[in-house]
Amino acid sequence: MESLDAFFNPQSVAVIGVSRNPNKVGSIIFRYLTESGLKLYPINPNLDEFMGYKAYPSVKDVPDKIDLAVIAVPSKVVPEVLRDCVEKGIRGVIIISAGFGETGEEGRRLEERLKEIIRGSKTRVIGPNCLGIYVPRKKIDALFTLRERSPRPPAGDFVYISQSGAAGVAFMDYAAHYGVGVSAFVSIGNKMDVSEVELLEYFAEHEETKAIALYLESIKDGRRFLEVAKKVSKKKPIVVLKGGRTSRGATAAALHTGSLAGSDAVIDGAFKQAGIIRAYDEEEIIDFARVLAYQKPMLGPRVVVVTSGGGYGVIATDYIESPYGDKGVGLKMADLTEETKEKLREVLVPYASVNNPVDLTADVTDEQYDKALELVNKDPNVDGILCLALFQTPFVTEKLVDIVEKWSKHGEKPMVVVSIGGTYTQKMIKEMERRRIAIYPSIWRGVKALRALYERGLYLKRMGVL
Amino acid sequence: MESLDAFFNPQSVAVIGVSRNPNKVGSIIFRYLTESGLKLYPINPNLDEFMGYKAYPSVKDVPDKIDLAVIAVPSKVVPEVLRDCVEKGIRGVIIISAGFGETGEEGRRLEERLKEIIRGSKTRVIGPNCLGIYVPRKKIDALFTLRERSPRPPAGDFVYISQSGAAGVAFMDYAAHYGVGVSAFVSIGNKMDVSEVELLEYFAEHEETKAIALYLESIKDGRRFLEVAKKVSKKKPIVVLKGGRTSRGATAAALHTGSLAGSDAVIDGAFKQAGIIRAYDEEEIIDFARVLAYQKPMLGPRVVVVTSGGGYGVIATDYIESPYGDKGVGLKMADLTEETKEKLREVLVPYASVNNPVDLTADVTDEQYDKALELVNKDPNVDGILCLALFQTPFVTEKLVDIVEKWSKHGEKPMVVVSIGGTYTQKMIKEMERRRIAIYPSIWRGVKALRALYERGLYLKRMGVL
Repeated sequence: MESLDAFFNPQSVAVIGVSRNPNKVGSIIFRYLTESGLKLYPINPNLDEFMGYKAYPSVKDVPDKIDLAVIAVPSKVVPEVLRDCVEKGIRGVIIISAGFGETGEEGRRLEERLKEIIRGSKTRVIGPNCLGIYVPRKKIDALFTLRERSPRPPAGDFVYISQSGAAGVAFMDYAAHYGVGVSAFVSIGNKMDVSEVELLEYFAEHEETKAIALYLESIKDGRRFLEVAKKVSKKKPIVVLKGGRTSRGATAAALHTGSLAGSDAVIDGAFKQAGIIRAYDEEEIIDFARVLAYQKPMLGPRVVVVTSGGGYGVIATDYIESPYGDKGVGLKMADLTEETKEKLREVLVPYASVNNPVDLTADVTDEQYDKALELVNKDPNVDGILCLALFQTPFVTEKLVDIVEKWSKHGEKPMVVVSIGGTYTQKMIKEMERRRIAIYPSIWRGVKALRALYERGLYLKRMGVL
Repeated sequence: MESLDAFFNPQSVAVIGVSRNPNKVGSIIFRYLTESGLKLYPINPNLDEFMGYKAYPSVKDVPDKIDLAVIAVPSKVVPEVLRDCVEKGIRGVIIISAGFGETGEEGRRLEERLKEIIRGSKTRVIGPNCLGIYVPRKKIDALFTLRERSPRPPAGDFVYISQSGAAGVAFMDYAAHYGVGVSAFVSIGNKMDVSEVELLEYFAEHEETKAIALYLESIKDGRRFLEVAKKVSKKKPIVVLKGGRTSRGATAAALHTGSLAGSDAVIDGAFKQAGIIRAYDEEEIIDFARVLAYQKPMLGPRVVVVTSGGGYGVIATDYIESPYGDKGVGLKMADLTEETKEKLREVLVPYASVNNPVDLTADVTDEQYDKALELVNKDPNVDGILCLALFQTPFVTEKLVDIVEKWSKHGEKPMVVVSIGGTYTQKMIKEMERRRIAIYPSIWRGVKALRALYERGLYLKRMGVL
């Protein structure tokens, strides 16, 4: 495999299709790229200069080496400028332009011509018909969506690869709002060349990426995808949201030839074998990618719930113990050792419950949360922790964030945190997200995240990795 | 049944246990009640005056009639002041004080004494060990939780009755943050007298209440509860979140004697027969209560999805078509009539999809959303509408809120709206909530809300009401 470094770690970038109009796609991308500090080359035959940079009629006129080119010109012109890129020896090309395979027969033929042009060359293409890419640590923002409408998330620990443009944009918007960070975002569009398989291989080696999230509606080569996934998932967790799992959904997704075929049960089995964690919607894909990037795998099914609200402990228990899929996740409530219970009794108020769920009651203090989390971490009967960190009780302060951070990062056991509430809670949730705590705003989402950690643990044990 | 009007529509209120310390429970409640404009009587034998109101040693010393008394004194004093209330002929008493049945044998005996005191009288008791009640349209805020930590939601269309204090507080906080309104909030505590059954009967007749949400961990008299629910639900939808559906969850909930017994499947069947919509967590109970309060029932299973993001249409389709409980809600994607499709083609861009999901594409305008919603409303093959109103696309404006409001309120078909995204989307979501549009921030929550409307429709048809 050729490395895709030209896309995600370029030194020099050409933008083909900058324009006097600052609102055109090429101009927007160039403007955002000026923040990267990379060598930039605006390309437009009618301009001598763009935003203070010397402009060139073609990439072939640029006297220096170019690693990456972003093409944002009308579809009819794309073959010509792509040929220039190949002749210039550019390794990475992102084709933003639409009007290809997605529009019908004529577009398909045009896309075939593009494939012809790169055949045998070292030029690799992402797109066409895509939003671009975003690599926050390198300050590479090659997206044409306006930041005012589509703000960018901060740097983080998982890559999000999206076949759907709209889902990609909404993801970025959502992630930015909640402070969820990404190592990269890749919109793959029509996948004429670079596919999900090569991106999997690339991000398996990408240092800043701790988990890989894929939103797919078609899979180009099912067999190869599963083979690669199986290798990669031994190293890094992969979460896949595959649209079109019902026949009606598949029709809507208009699955392409060569896609991973078979019923949903078959896909489910294949994914499991390949160690792929499956997500079913736009929330789960992020929820699972985050927890897998932030937390260690769970090595058994036994969960302890630490809560200050008894009712929420009950709901969590019901979800944990119910069979998987049937309003539950099929895990087990841990039976705490007598030693743990005794020590809990020593630190908690007399009317607290030291059984599982451990109910610290509304009189809980920060210190009691701290001590309880320490004790359940030490209990050999516990495989994972669900901490319901509620901020409405009178003796809990912002310090609770430090406490859950400590046990999230330095505890022996994997931990998921749930906080439920309004404006103040939302502020605490964002702060916890900033610190890479696996925090969820609802019990169900938190419990499902634990299940993802458990599936990860099962797979790694089966593979002999753990 | 005696009416519970003394609680929810009183003219005069005594607060027993105001104190010079403004942070004591009684003082907080009195302070909030001053906003109600009701006649108020602070009770404290050591005070002549409180916040400018004449104070009395006992309710028996008040020269006027008192409808409602709120008791916030130490548990040992409660019997004495409750006896005063009975002798004064007060119809409604809320006992905030804790230290009764929930604390053990001694507390249980004390609670039995309270029952003795009211026996044969016209005095009814909510509590003890509760947070109080909140009736926004009457400005009755008899809750002791501080507004700074536990803000109050606006006036709205459903009542939330909670057996869990913590779940009640977190609900209020959540609802206030998202602008979700309530007709009333009732914390029922130990239910020594007024139970869920009488509250059901009362709110069945409560004009401002369009739906009833109950969070229960025990049910006092299962048979009677189901009988009453069956009657009430013909008139108003009831949503119940019953904690303790697994045996481990039931242990955690410490189910009381006389509770609705039997396995979860039995409860499920009984709830269905009684027309109760079941919620499984703290989000579903609000999600279902809202949609049932805001929208009409769905008379068949056929859903049309109107979206501007193709990928999200696919996810919605998969959830709609999958069997209920198995990563889906067991509804059907509607087959639009040829006439509808043709008319859609006339108004949409050529690359839009006029099949179901109707994909308006990222080039959608407000007007196209409007026209599409009009056309699917008219289609005889459609029983309900899921509108994915996405605000990231360039030609959609705030007017989209007016459009979904129009079709939510004046369309023929029930409609649920989903918006996914960040800061701007969150603002639009709050505005839609203010206008009582059934808006959800995720596809799964929106699809489940449609399922609740469908279950409601099934029940009303089976009962011959529709």
